[in-house]
Amino acid sequence: MSFPSPSGHLRRSIILKRRPHGNPRPHDFELIEDEVPTPGTGEVVTRTIWLSIDPYMRGRLSERKSYAPSVQIGEVMTGESVGEVIASNDPRFAAGDVVVGSRGWQTHSVTRGDQLAKIDRPGPPLSTYLGVLGMPGTTAYSGMKDIGEPKQGETVVISAASGAVGSVAGQLAKREGARVIGVAGAPEKCLFVQETLGFDDCVDHRSVDLRQALADACPYGIDVYWENVGGALQAAAFDLLNTFARVVMCGMVSQYNAAEFPPGPNLGFVVGKRVRIQGMIVFDKPERYAEWRELAKPWVMDGSLKYREDVYEGLENAPAALAALLEGKNFGKMLVKVGAEPD
Amino acid sequence: MSFPSPSGHLRRSIILKRRPHGNPRPHDFELIEDEVPTPGTGEVVTRTIWLSIDPYMRGRLSERKSYAPSVQIGEVMTGESVGEVIASNDPRFAAGDVVVGSRGWQTHSVTRGDQLAKIDRPGPPLSTYLGVLGMPGTTAYSGMKDIGEPKQGETVVISAASGAVGSVAGQLAKREGARVIGVAGAPEKCLFVQETLGFDDCVDHRSVDLRQALADACPYGIDVYWENVGGALQAAAFDLLNTFARVVMCGMVSQYNAAEFPPGPNLGFVVGKRVRIQGMIVFDKPERYAEWRELAKPWVMDGSLKYREDVYEGLENAPAALAALLEGKNFGKMLVKVGAEPD
Repeated sequence: MSFPSPSGHLRRSIILKRRPHGNPRPHDFELIEDEVPTPGTGEVVTRTIWLSIDPYMRGRLSERKSYAPSVQIGEVMTGESVGEVIASNDPRFAAGDVVVGSRGWQTHSVTRGDQLAKIDRPGPPLSTYLGVLGMPGTTAYSGMKDIGEPKQGETVVISAASGAVGSVAGQLAKREGARVIGVAGAPEKCLFVQETLGFDDCVDHRSVDLRQALADACPYGIDVYWENVGGALQAAAFDLLNTFARVVMCGMVSQYNAAEFPPGPNLGFVVGKRVRIQGMIVFDKPERYAEWRELAKPWVMDGSLKYREDVYEGLENAPAALAALLEGKNFGKMLVKVGAEPD
Repeated sequence: MSFPSPSGHLRRSIILKRRPHGNPRPHDFELIEDEVPTPGTGEVVTRTIWLSIDPYMRGRLSERKSYAPSVQIGEVMTGESVGEVIASNDPRFAAGDVVVGSRGWQTHSVTRGDQLAKIDRPGPPLSTYLGVLGMPGTTAYSGMKDIGEPKQGETVVISAASGAVGSVAGQLAKREGARVIGVAGAPEKCLFVQETLGFDDCVDHRSVDLRQALADACPYGIDVYWENVGGALQAAAFDLLNTFARVVMCGMVSQYNAAEFPPGPNLGFVVGKRVRIQGMIVFDKPERYAEWRELAKPWVMDGSLKYREDVYEGLENAPAALAALLEGKNFGKMLVKVGAEPD
């Protein structure tokens, strides 16, 4: 990987070239180079170390109306990253500080200081601020706290269980004393979910009979279903929901690349079973970020909160990483290593 | 109508003869006669005055698993009614008292006293204890209080708006300052919803283009959707839901007679819009019954809470009343007048 020297102030950025149809392909993006702009008042220049790749990014590539604005053609692709400050016009930051924030698919960013949060060092690995301690971890925490509310002895089903959000959501439910069943898309993922994450069981959603496999894993029905996926898994899980079940609607990645959406399950059961189906987006409660970081840092440090990362090397591979994520080919939190760790 | 004299202790009851396919028909039921049994310890004999006919009853006729047990073949059909005590072995009740409770499709019932609630007289019309002040009114109150939570200036859409639940739900939302749009199935019902109930607008769901008509009535989208109906109306309403919208899932009467359920809407929007879709059944919070009765009695007495009743005469017409209700042919709270009002 050829990484431009920060001292040279050459910057590489990935812009959106055309709107993808179906899964994004490398030629939907373009790598451009320019000089790093001189920072204005209150601005901070950073070099990127870790770039986060997340399922929500597919929505940004689409013209379809969503909760956040689309990336426009010719614009730098959005994304969270961890970086090192190399110059600062904000008194709160100095060269050498390590920060996390929304800084886009770039080797260097110029950002307003109030868009960045400083990372205390020494501490957990920097990459965890994009995964288990960052947006995905906070999503899991917020959704379980505000909607899922798993209780001792309940059955909790987590879709995309080996992923960045699912792995934390399930471990949180385990800490509450629930019986936790993961759903993942490969035998080695299921092994990880059971052996490393400590879930009670894991169903491979590529099972010949997913519906039967899930029913077998949930003999007492489902009290909390964490939805990351949609499609056939959603239908199977909804059929098993118990009275007063909660469904945390976090994502439906199985249809993010679809041009048209298939119909969903008939909702008659929601009345009789008094089910609560609720959507959530992590930034609705910004206070949860710091709350979760404080809560989970010791668990990451002592190794009791497990996580796994899937790392692509080099900014130029960010489009391929996103495509792989959307096809479920990642195994753990998807990251791109853009620059060297600081000393 | 030939009503047997209570003094003669002859009793007429309607039992389930066979499970209906589709809409119930009179020959699915049978009228039987017997002697009123002698009340045991703690039991009360009542003669029925008003019998309530409600959509949930369709579920009791089916073998399909539901939140309450099915009525078995040969059993008396269940239902709430208002009656007069004619004999009592419970010290809390005396002959001449008027009571409300679950007493079935019968001219006379023998019930444990703890299954009955005494109605204070004088007061609102006795029939209102089955409608606006009874189970349907409490359903509306409970669903709006715990799930809908309509706020000043929000848009609230009420399906089956001229019915027993919808008419109260919409009036409650009006009292909170919301803009309330009814949906009903006939021009005269829409007139009633707007002119008498005071909703801001009403859409006839038999409109040629229901989707367009609902969109036209809700230029700012929908913040609260009260679901009594399902089907095409649900799809149209879901498409108009705003960010943080609430859907009170109270019933889906359009499919109660169906052998198979059609698919529902794709739920992808629930994530991005953070919608909450929640089922409810009134008896989950029994304390709401008394709470609502106290709150609403003055509004019924002063005429500020409007209601409308659709009355069939004679116990033998209860099956026809239920069939009409399930086809949306009722206009207001469906009741059967079984016996004379007390002096």
